[in-house]
Amino acid sequence: MPKNKMIFYILAITVSLISFVVAFVFFKWINKQPSENAEILRVGKLIKNGARTFLKREYAVLVKFALVVTLLILVFLPTPIWKQTSFTDILKENIFMSVAYVLGNVLSALAGVIGIEVATIANTKCAEAAKQGIRPAFKVGFRGGSVMGMAVVGLGLLGVTVVYLLTKNSTILLGFSFGASSLALFAKVGGGIFTKTADISADLAGKVELDIPEDDPRNPAVIADNVGDNVGDVAGMGADLFDSNVAAFAATITIASVLSLKLDVDLIPIIFCYASLGLLASIIGVIASRIGKNGNPTHALNSTTYLTTGLFVIFTVLVTFLINVEGKWRILLATVIGLGVGTIIGITTDYFTNDTKKPVQNVAKASELGPAFTVLSGTSYGFLSAFPAMAGIAVTSLLAYTVAYPIDNTITSGMFGISMAAVGMLSIVAMIVSNDAYGPIVDNARGLAEMGGLDEEVIKVTDELDSAGNTVKAITKGFAISAAGLTVISLLGAFLEEVNKIVNTLNTDLGYIKYEALTGFDLLDPVVFFGILVGATIPAVFSSLLIRGVDRNAQKMLKEIHRQFTEIEGLKEAKPGVHPEYDKCITIATTGALNELMIAGAVTIVVTLLVGFIGGVKAIGGFLLGNIVVGLFLALYMSNAGGLWDNSKKYVESGHNGGKGSEAHKAAVIGDTIGDPFKDTAGPSINTQITVVSLIASIMALLFLTLSIF
Amino acid sequence: MPKNKMIFYILAITVSLISFVVAFVFFKWINKQPSENAEILRVGKLIKNGARTFLKREYAVLVKFALVVTLLILVFLPTPIWKQTSFTDILKENIFMSVAYVLGNVLSALAGVIGIEVATIANTKCAEAAKQGIRPAFKVGFRGGSVMGMAVVGLGLLGVTVVYLLTKNSTILLGFSFGASSLALFAKVGGGIFTKTADISADLAGKVELDIPEDDPRNPAVIADNVGDNVGDVAGMGADLFDSNVAAFAATITIASVLSLKLDVDLIPIIFCYASLGLLASIIGVIASRIGKNGNPTHALNSTTYLTTGLFVIFTVLVTFLINVEGKWRILLATVIGLGVGTIIGITTDYFTNDTKKPVQNVAKASELGPAFTVLSGTSYGFLSAFPAMAGIAVTSLLAYTVAYPIDNTITSGMFGISMAAVGMLSIVAMIVSNDAYGPIVDNARGLAEMGGLDEEVIKVTDELDSAGNTVKAITKGFAISAAGLTVISLLGAFLEEVNKIVNTLNTDLGYIKYEALTGFDLLDPVVFFGILVGATIPAVFSSLLIRGVDRNAQKMLKEIHRQFTEIEGLKEAKPGVHPEYDKCITIATTGALNELMIAGAVTIVVTLLVGFIGGVKAIGGFLLGNIVVGLFLALYMSNAGGLWDNSKKYVESGHNGGKGSEAHKAAVIGDTIGDPFKDTAGPSINTQITVVSLIASIMALLFLTLSIF
Repeated sequence: MPKNKMIFYILAITVSLISFVVAFVFFKWINKQPSENAEILRVGKLIKNGARTFLKREYAVLVKFALVVTLLILVFLPTPIWKQTSFTDILKENIFMSVAYVLGNVLSALAGVIGIEVATIANTKCAEAAKQGIRPAFKVGFRGGSVMGMAVVGLGLLGVTVVYLLTKNSTILLGFSFGASSLALFAKVGGGIFTKTADISADLAGKVELDIPEDDPRNPAVIADNVGDNVGDVAGMGADLFDSNVAAFAATITIASVLSLKLDVDLIPIIFCYASLGLLASIIGVIASRIGKNGNPTHALNSTTYLTTGLFVIFTVLVTFLINVEGKWRILLATVIGLGVGTIIGITTDYFTNDTKKPVQNVAKASELGPAFTVLSGTSYGFLSAFPAMAGIAVTSLLAYTVAYPIDNTITSGMFGISMAAVGMLSIVAMIVSNDAYGPIVDNARGLAEMGGLDEEVIKVTDELDSAGNTVKAITKGFAISAAGLTVISLLGAFLEEVNKIVNTLNTDLGYIKYEALTGFDLLDPVVFFGILVGATIPAVFSSLLIRGVDRNAQKMLKEIHRQFTEIEGLKEAKPGVHPEYDKCITIATTGALNELMIAGAVTIVVTLLVGFIGGVKAIGGFLLGNIVVGLFLALYMSNAGGLWDNSKKYVESGHNGGKGSEAHKAAVIGDTIGDPFKDTAGPSINTQITVVSLIASIMALLFLTLSIF
Repeated sequence: MPKNKMIFYILAITVSLISFVVAFVFFKWINKQPSENAEILRVGKLIKNGARTFLKREYAVLVKFALVVTLLILVFLPTPIWKQTSFTDILKENIFMSVAYVLGNVLSALAGVIGIEVATIANTKCAEAAKQGIRPAFKVGFRGGSVMGMAVVGLGLLGVTVVYLLTKNSTILLGFSFGASSLALFAKVGGGIFTKTADISADLAGKVELDIPEDDPRNPAVIADNVGDNVGDVAGMGADLFDSNVAAFAATITIASVLSLKLDVDLIPIIFCYASLGLLASIIGVIASRIGKNGNPTHALNSTTYLTTGLFVIFTVLVTFLINVEGKWRILLATVIGLGVGTIIGITTDYFTNDTKKPVQNVAKASELGPAFTVLSGTSYGFLSAFPAMAGIAVTSLLAYTVAYPIDNTITSGMFGISMAAVGMLSIVAMIVSNDAYGPIVDNARGLAEMGGLDEEVIKVTDELDSAGNTVKAITKGFAISAAGLTVISLLGAFLEEVNKIVNTLNTDLGYIKYEALTGFDLLDPVVFFGILVGATIPAVFSSLLIRGVDRNAQKMLKEIHRQFTEIEGLKEAKPGVHPEYDKCITIATTGALNELMIAGAVTIVVTLLVGFIGGVKAIGGFLLGNIVVGLFLALYMSNAGGLWDNSKKYVESGHNGGKGSEAHKAAVIGDTIGDPFKDTAGPSINTQITVVSLIASIMALLFLTLSIF
């Protein structure tokens, strides 16, 4: 380590600030793009207002929730206030932690708001730009996504750096991370339910029942559908990756702080160094990104990702030469292993959802015989698709642990290796978010082009951009789930270290050994095993509630659409001046989503507390493992099966197996509808659910240790 | 323990023999029942021949497989033949184990054959008896099922007693159990694929496309469908429960033998004692069973189960007074906890599949809006339904472990408690099998009554019997999965004891400590964790292959049905003398099932070997846990969702939500079709898959310990 390790913290702050500058410049640039079409502007405004209304109502609910939690933290965490010996302790622990929690919430929400604001401008500008051709339209869409990418990762890195520099306390950092995650949980769930409620209803009413195009302005759910893309895919996803990123930091720093003490070397600056280099590489990648001469947007997105990955490896290798810490190459190797395997998992996952490969084509073929076969063959591929990613995570963990283990020859250095692999996978997350947020922007642009009555040629351009978004999404999703998987494994390690820190303090205070230090979690210990089995059910129960939420709300909205087509005269016939009541659909989606998200969140948290107070820290260790194992499986299965069905439908629509209007098409649309809440509500929310539970475990460690029944 | 502990072994043998006598008497009684209708006899014969042909072809494949495995065992297991020091060791270990393996196969196959032979007689007799009313018909159906129940449990108990008495070696017993399980795996998978291939094709072609009744003789797949009920539900399920039962014995005896040595008291006779009392209680229950004055068959089946449970508790309490072993009440308590929780889980599971409860009715209602909602709401309930059973197993394990732990204050006594809970749950398995095998018999009878042209009144009687079978099936399935869950947990404990036995022997032979004894499996150990993640994917991959098998074969068969209706003149119009080519459909189902079952079985076994030789015994410990956790979840989800969809369809057919022919009905039929391979192929096969993997782990322990990379 260079003597002045502050240089790495300064690097982190500088790079975050650069990312904000880039985001600001892009934002200004997008705003300057021309927009003339009055209809596009009108509809764009409806979408923007719908998204803002939803966010406002959602945040109003979440503020109340966050206030209650802040108060609870203040009184109980990390140590109940009446057990603190001095006001300094209360200040440095309880007050700092509650402030950190609030800050986590605020930054996470801010990332979402920024994303929404940009996306709801970029969508109209992108539709207009499509008139000039694919290259300018791509640029608008991608830069829109990049603003989100820069904001999410910049805010995360800056937040973590500031909180850590001010407190030097990893437990407080876990509190900050918990704030980010609990907001992400609700944003993801609420947005996910909203978007799929609207999407399913719009699709079924439009394509299946009335046989009108996807974004026909007569469809009462069409605005809600476009709002959903923003609140679900942009704001929700942004909060989600903000949370994974911060959680990976928090876990790694927690483990590193223990290891640093043991080795008497401060390892934490390395974490900030690598993370800053990752963001730097992403910034360069984003700025350099442009569509090639072949005009292929998928190619442009992918090559930007590869460029970023390459830059990151070069940067870190160079910097590692300059660092003076024993075992540094082991740390770097663990980091690079994470990034490498992440890429491989992304590519493997792509196999199951890419329409040039067998799975999508076979499911399209099976659809010829009816929807039962669409669902069965998709389920079969979905189950299978979990294998490469989970085996990949298994191998990564084993390798990263083995590589890092010799640093200290303890479980701490091994787990540090795994957590650095997570940091490695997440190093290019700014790039991933940019690619991901690009999707809903161009999807919206497509809808706007159609509703604005632009030419067929223009719509085709937006179609092509949209299709590239879908292809890339499959890869980035595999990447995001794997990174979250490694993160939660690291959080399990962090939990162990937190417990042992507390055990040490308690025993020292008592003057004798009352609490035993944890050396691990034996899965044959009945309390651990109890935790594992109960933990294994949580992602399933959580998913069940989310799917039920979409299911119930979509049924309501579908009835509302039927009502409007029956009662509003001239709507079906597209009589000029007759508009559907878009806001009724938006209200149904909003109210429904807010009702359901509280239940799903509450169940998860309550069961965690129950298991903790019944079985104590050992049961919680098992509980986290059960969560991770079944959660990873379900997240992969649902995301991949959903993507597969979506692309099979598109494959049929592009003229295969009978094409649009055929029996196969009807079956494929049903498959897609089933896949919608799988891939965009339940699947991607599970990550966040596991992270929240893991963080609760860590920050409640003292209470679970001292107050449990078993 | 009474001084002469042989009394308990004699008890076991006597009770098994009594069960054979009861089975034989019932069989004779069934054979004596009248049968006059020529058409029923003709079709009954077609079914019997179809079932026999399938079994013959299946066993022909399995004999080859078993021969190869026998040879491998002879050479390698439990110790490679060239490492044995004397011929006596080879005889007592390798030769005995291969013989035990063969015996396990043979008895398991025999149980299946007996079941099929009885079921394919009882079906025709039951159809005829229905002319006299529900009470005689119920008696024929239930006694038919009981023959199977008695045979399965009697053969299992007798086999285990004889193998143990002759060898006194629990490792050999694990080999016997492996024989039973590997045959069960193939029987379950092969039968499951066969039955659902035929069922789906018959349903889709009949109900959806041609709008003819369920068992219309014009349908070319109708005989294959009825054959499938026998080879899947009777033979497959019989082999499955034979395997669970034997595996629970083997695991318990393995653990008990270690514990007995430590305590210097022989605990094994108690296991035989309780198991014998369970079979005795079941025999009395079966004989006493009759339909009450209210004529309700569901009530009759359930009250028989409760009677058996009550008798078992009374018997064991009384006998335990006579036993003279310290800690005997703890052992009894663990056993009774298992039985009690099993019953509670059964009842809870029933909630999700009973048509008088909300889930089934809500799914029927959701179907009004189309199949996407049928699938989504069913999936949501299915995910949720795993919670009570898994939490129940978690609580049972924790309680049984805690209750038994003080016997020796080690993990061994704790795990002994869990394994006794499994024995307790399985104590009334003869009753469960009787109830379960009753289902396909009356289902067949219903089909025969229709094809034999019996009166509407008679068909209604068989309908009522069939519906009772379906209701009870949900409860017994929950029971069977929970029992299998506890059994595989016990097998994990048995694996640990096997490894430690080997570690002891190896170290003693070497004269120094080369291998460390296992004290458990730490889930933060990277090798264990690697095993957990890979193990977690196996039930999913396995299910994926099974669903794919059904999916592919049903598509083939559906095409064959279309061909017959196009090419065979007069078939559609039911011209007298024109019959479809039933055997073509039977051949498709048979060939397809045999092809798919080898792949699914092979993948499971190969991955287990890979993980064992890469990560050694620790990785295998994790691998088993991953298997158990995801396996339990998937088994519960798929069985319950499938049952739910099946009953929703029946609920709609009984006139709700638009009734037969409505949009809701079409959607519900699609849901049922999707649920078919879930509940009757993949779901119930997972138990057996996990058991096979667990047993391979135990019998390969020496090789995994000494030859692994990590």
